[in-house]
Amino acid sequence: MVSAWWQQPAQPVDMGRRAQALAREAQLTKPAGSLGRLEQVAVTLASLQRRGAPSLERLWISIFAADHGIAAEGVSAFPQEVTGQMLANFAHGGAAISVLARHLGAPLELIDLGLALEIAPLPGVRHLNIAAGTASFLHGAAMTTAECDAALQAGAAAIERAAAAGAELFIGGEMGIGNTSSACALSALLMNRPVAELVGVGTGLSPLALRHKTKVIERAVAHHRPYADEAYEALRRVGGLEVAALAGAYIAAAQQGIAVLVDGYITTAAALCAVRMNPDVAGWLLYSHRGAEPGHCLLLQELDAEPLLSLDLRLGEASGAALAVPLLQAACRLHNEMATFTEAAVSGSLK
Amino acid sequence: MVSAWWQQPAQPVDMGRRAQALAREAQLTKPAGSLGRLEQVAVTLASLQRRGAPSLERLWISIFAADHGIAAEGVSAFPQEVTGQMLANFAHGGAAISVLARHLGAPLELIDLGLALEIAPLPGVRHLNIAAGTASFLHGAAMTTAECDAALQAGAAAIERAAAAGAELFIGGEMGIGNTSSACALSALLMNRPVAELVGVGTGLSPLALRHKTKVIERAVAHHRPYADEAYEALRRVGGLEVAALAGAYIAAAQQGIAVLVDGYITTAAALCAVRMNPDVAGWLLYSHRGAEPGHCLLLQELDAEPLLSLDLRLGEASGAALAVPLLQAACRLHNEMATFTEAAVSGSLK
Repeated sequence: MVSAWWQQPAQPVDMGRRAQALAREAQLTKPAGSLGRLEQVAVTLASLQRRGAPSLERLWISIFAADHGIAAEGVSAFPQEVTGQMLANFAHGGAAISVLARHLGAPLELIDLGLALEIAPLPGVRHLNIAAGTASFLHGAAMTTAECDAALQAGAAAIERAAAAGAELFIGGEMGIGNTSSACALSALLMNRPVAELVGVGTGLSPLALRHKTKVIERAVAHHRPYADEAYEALRRVGGLEVAALAGAYIAAAQQGIAVLVDGYITTAAALCAVRMNPDVAGWLLYSHRGAEPGHCLLLQELDAEPLLSLDLRLGEASGAALAVPLLQAACRLHNEMATFTEAAVSGSLK
Repeated sequence: MVSAWWQQPAQPVDMGRRAQALAREAQLTKPAGSLGRLEQVAVTLASLQRRGAPSLERLWISIFAADHGIAAEGVSAFPQEVTGQMLANFAHGGAAISVLARHLGAPLELIDLGLALEIAPLPGVRHLNIAAGTASFLHGAAMTTAECDAALQAGAAAIERAAAAGAELFIGGEMGIGNTSSACALSALLMNRPVAELVGVGTGLSPLALRHKTKVIERAVAHHRPYADEAYEALRRVGGLEVAALAGAYIAAAQQGIAVLVDGYITTAAALCAVRMNPDVAGWLLYSHRGAEPGHCLLLQELDAEPLLSLDLRLGEASGAALAVPLLQAACRLHNEMATFTEAAVSGSLK
C-alpha cells in the first residue's frame, strides 16, 4: 500500500537552536526560571522556527465549519441551523473570534466544509460543500473515505495558504452544532476510555439532556469500537468534516514547519487524532487553554500537554487560542529583547 | 484622633452598570457563560468604570524600588547592589517589565524610594530617597512613622499622575533585594499564620539558605507580633518602603476610581495590607496571576482572589500583571463588540 500524504515526515526540530535558546534564558536579567512557563514557550518556538529570535507577528487563523448527523439525536442545546447562522456571524465580524482576530490584527479565513441546511453563499467564505454534513454515527460511519480524505485535504490546503502568507503560527478553530459529541466519541475510541469520563454539557445541556447525550454516544462507540483500531478509521467513523480538516491542517503544518496553537476540546481531539496518524506532529503543537469540558482535560493529559490558560472557556471557534497569542508574543519579545547580566552590568546570584 | 487620608472612602461601585453588563453578556452570540472568567472581568470593569463599554486602552505602570535592611541577614540569593543595578536596567529598557511595557505601549514610571547603596541619578527615575533602605526588622521596626507615611504618600502621588494621564488601569510593581522576606513577615502578621507556611525560595535560595531565611523571619515575627495588631503598624514594622508605596497607591486608586491589576507576591501582600487599612479597596483590585511562592497562594486565598494566569512566574516588577493585560483588553472588546443573538439573527438555545 502506498503511504498517504499525512504519513510523510514532519520538519525536524532544531536541537542546536534549542540549546542556544536555553543558554540565553539563563543569561537574561532575571532570577533563573522566574518567567516560568514563558521561558519554555520561547525555547520551543526558537527550536521550531530555527532562529535565535523567535517571532509571532504573522498569524493565520482558519475556522472550519460543518454539520453533524448526530445532531438529529438531540445531543445539543442549539438547533442545527445555528452552524450556518454563526458562519454568517463570523463573516460579518460579530462573533467572538471575529473580535479577537481584529484585536490581534490577524487574518481570519472561514471554510464551510458542508452544512446540513442550504445557505446562500457568504462573502469571504470558502464553501467546499464536501457533504451536507456528516451522516449520524449512531448506526453507521459519519463519513465515506472520499469525504474524510477531502476534509483532511481541506485542512492541508489551509496550511498551503498560511505558508504562502509567511505565517509563523497556525490556529485552527471550528463551528458545528453537535461537535462535542463527535469529539467525545472520537476521544473515547482513540484513548479507549469510557464515554462517561469524557462527556460534557457542550453549549449548555440540562442534566437530563446530558444523560441522553451520554447514552447516544455510548451506543455509537460500542458499535464502532471493533472497527476503529486505527486513528484514520476512528476519525472517519465518528469524527466530523471540521475535525478531519483540523487534523489534516495540524499534520500539514508540522510537515511545512509551521508551529500550531491548539484551541479547545474539539481541536484537541483533532490534535490527538493527528498525532496518532503521524507521531511526528506532536512536537509542533502548543496548547492554549484547559477548558471546562471533562474530555478536554483527559485529552490534554494523553497528549502530555500543559496549556497556558485556564479560564473556564467552552466556546471553541479558536477563541481560547486567540486569547493565548499575546502570551506567546510576549514570551518571544522577552527572550529577544531583555538585557543579559553582562550587558546590563547586573551582579549574578551569590551561589 | 484625626483619620488619615487612607481611611477616606473609596469610590462606590456602580451596581446598575453591573446589572446592565450581566444582561448584555447573556445576549451575546455564544453559549451562556462560555467565555468563562473573561465575562466576569468585563462585568467588573463596566461596574468600576461606570460605563456600558469598559475599556483598557490607557494604562499606567509604576515600579517602586527600595532596599531592605533584612538583606544583611543573608536572606536573598542576590547581593543588595542588584536593587540599584536593576533600577538602571529598567531605565535603560533591558528588564522584563521594560520589554512588556513597550509590548503594551504603556507608560512605565520608575520611583526610587530609597536604596542602601548610593547611585548616580538615573534618567527618567524619580529618586525620592526617603531613607537609605529600611532598617533590619530582625530586632527593630523597618521604618519610622515618618518614613512609612512618606512611602504611602509616594504611592498616592503615583496615582495622582496616573489619574492626570486618564489611566483606566493602574499596575504597581516592585524591585528590592530581600523583599520576599518582608512580604513573608507582613503576611504572617496580617494573617496570623506561621512563617513556615508562607516562606519561599524568592529569587532562588538553596534548601539550606531557605532554612536560614525561615529562622530569621520567624524570630522577627515573634518579636513584632505583640505590637502589630493593626495593619499600619505591621507594615511599618516589617514592610518595606516599596510595599508601603504599593499599599498607598492601591488605596488612592480606589479613592480616585481607578481599577488596579495586582501583580505577584510582594504586591499581593501590599494589597492585603491596603484592604486591612481600608476595606473599601477590595472591590477595586483585580488579580493577574498565581505565582510560585507559597505565601502568594495563601494571600490570594485570604483576599478571595481568583487570578487569571498561573504560569509559575516569580519575577515581580509588575511582569505578571503586564502579561495579563491583553486578556483584560480582550474581555472588554468581546463585551463591547460581539453581536447579540438578535443583531446576528442567530437562533437561541432550545430550552
